[in-house]
Amino acid sequence: MEVEFVRWLRDHVPRDPRLRLGLGDDAAMLSLAGRADVVLTTDLLTDGVDFHVGADDPRRIGRKALAVNLSDLAAMAARPLAAVVSIALPREPTAAGTPLELAIALYEGLLPLAADYELAIAGGDTNTYDGPLVISATLLGEVTDRGPLTRGGGRPGDWLLVTGTLGGTVLGHSFDFTPRIQEALLLHERYQLHAGMDISDGLALDLSRLAAESGCGAVVITDRVPVSSAAIELAKKAGSEACGELSRAEQVGDSPWRGAGSDSTTLALRHALSDGEDFELLIATPPDAAAAILRDQPLTCPVTHVGELIADAGLWQQLPDGSRQPLEPIGWLH
Amino acid sequence: MEVEFVRWLRDHVPRDPRLRLGLGDDAAMLSLAGRADVVLTTDLLTDGVDFHVGADDPRRIGRKALAVNLSDLAAMAARPLAAVVSIALPREPTAAGTPLELAIALYEGLLPLAADYELAIAGGDTNTYDGPLVISATLLGEVTDRGPLTRGGGRPGDWLLVTGTLGGTVLGHSFDFTPRIQEALLLHERYQLHAGMDISDGLALDLSRLAAESGCGAVVITDRVPVSSAAIELAKKAGSEACGELSRAEQVGDSPWRGAGSDSTTLALRHALSDGEDFELLIATPPDAAAAILRDQPLTCPVTHVGELIADAGLWQQLPDGSRQPLEPIGWLH
Repeated sequence: MEVEFVRWLRDHVPRDPRLRLGLGDDAAMLSLAGRADVVLTTDLLTDGVDFHVGADDPRRIGRKALAVNLSDLAAMAARPLAAVVSIALPREPTAAGTPLELAIALYEGLLPLAADYELAIAGGDTNTYDGPLVISATLLGEVTDRGPLTRGGGRPGDWLLVTGTLGGTVLGHSFDFTPRIQEALLLHERYQLHAGMDISDGLALDLSRLAAESGCGAVVITDRVPVSSAAIELAKKAGSEACGELSRAEQVGDSPWRGAGSDSTTLALRHALSDGEDFELLIATPPDAAAAILRDQPLTCPVTHVGELIADAGLWQQLPDGSRQPLEPIGWLH
Repeated sequence: MEVEFVRWLRDHVPRDPRLRLGLGDDAAMLSLAGRADVVLTTDLLTDGVDFHVGADDPRRIGRKALAVNLSDLAAMAARPLAAVVSIALPREPTAAGTPLELAIALYEGLLPLAADYELAIAGGDTNTYDGPLVISATLLGEVTDRGPLTRGGGRPGDWLLVTGTLGGTVLGHSFDFTPRIQEALLLHERYQLHAGMDISDGLALDLSRLAAESGCGAVVITDRVPVSSAAIELAKKAGSEACGELSRAEQVGDSPWRGAGSDSTTLALRHALSDGEDFELLIATPPDAAAAILRDQPLTCPVTHVGELIADAGLWQQLPDGSRQPLEPIGWLH
């Protein structure tokens, strides 16, 4: 089936001027003249964890396989260059059709996203086997003159900003999110950023990682966390049971609100702190730069001030009454 | 389990000076100063097709996952730079142990090979799921001043050379082969090569691809094909039934010897032409350069003259009596 699929690919994958050799040889060759540093990132998605063949449109699955990697490039403030996509396809037909039909549908979902982000599809490997669908994409990007945005540059006193709204991603956002490439490049070019990452496993868990890499602690100001309407909807409808639908990944950490009531506002906040798959940016930046970003609001999505880095290690939440309590790094561990 | 595994990786993956950012951030960053062109290649290996968990040592499986990609870089005459490795691990323990034990064993197999080939392990993604083991590796390499070796540069009259010996790879070579990086770089530097590739699916099938990309036909001189001792052993022991053990991939093409007898010499030749997973180099080079290579024998493995490219399309075999017959492009199609 790979022969037919490569034929389809040759007809449907656009030629890219950066690709000096593409499909059809043993490897792709990219012209990197003038580029000094590249970044390389990879994510592997599996049926039953990151998506469900039969329940989810394979076009959305294909899109997601690229989008999660684009989000990693955004986390580094890197421009997309090229991708290779490897797919292990179930040998027997699925709800998504024959292996060839499934492979084509995956590409029909990922090609428009690649075009939107000027990402060259440089190659891949597509095989059938007796197992569930697995997709692995690897992306090459380039950092700008400002260098990469890393997790380790934060300093005590930095304000913490997030793009967009958080939580409830199981209602659709985990497939349809916008990788924040343009947003990261714009912020990194115009303002002084110290550290950054994308929120893939939940604000609380990912912030604990950024703080640890920066040798700091962090405080989240709970009533400033931008809770998505989907998180509110989830909280109203089903309470925390809905968490279990996201995936079979393991949710870790005790609820910081255990015994503190379970009204829908509290549950919605919990979704925003821990659901994961937000793929929004988390940025640590000095207060004056942060204030400028908050005043300018230079993005098409909101930027919100949700806390700050502190010298003392650990993760804390500042409640509306001004008191500080420990915050467990709740989120999704794979 | 990914947390424990990343901890193990941080202790066991050597630091590489080309990696300006490695494990622990959203992407790896490589310094490419002075390098104009890079090549990117990926291969995905699945349980039941490329290896068998339980039957094959996971260290050999891990080694193979890198080695097949290194062979693709050799095919381009490119130097290895960096790799990312993504793994989908069965959630339940296998004959190879817990998911963590399996992941570590895979790396114990691939890390020594990476060191031998000066390949930086730049990152990866390791997840558990309800399915068989899948490994996908993506390698970044750099071409030399001589540019890449491609499939498309062959011309009528070029001699066809192969490294090593062919066939019978199921007896061990398909795991333990030497990626021909040094060999490709040396030949490409010292001699005029027109076209090249690695033999992954069998000489007959892969030669038909090289010839097609070069706009030529090809003739194989059957009594010059370097048949491996493993191919001879297989032919003596079990005849062509042994082919079926290699994998569940589909073998295509009729035997050119159908009805022409099935003595063990003929069967051994068939193994050499079609078994696949030889991962030797197939080179097309002008006769004077070819003669120099054959005279010098500059490699630690033999280089053999097995045929030539011709102007007429199609794949042919020249028999010991000098007659030409069509040769089916037999080999392994995935």
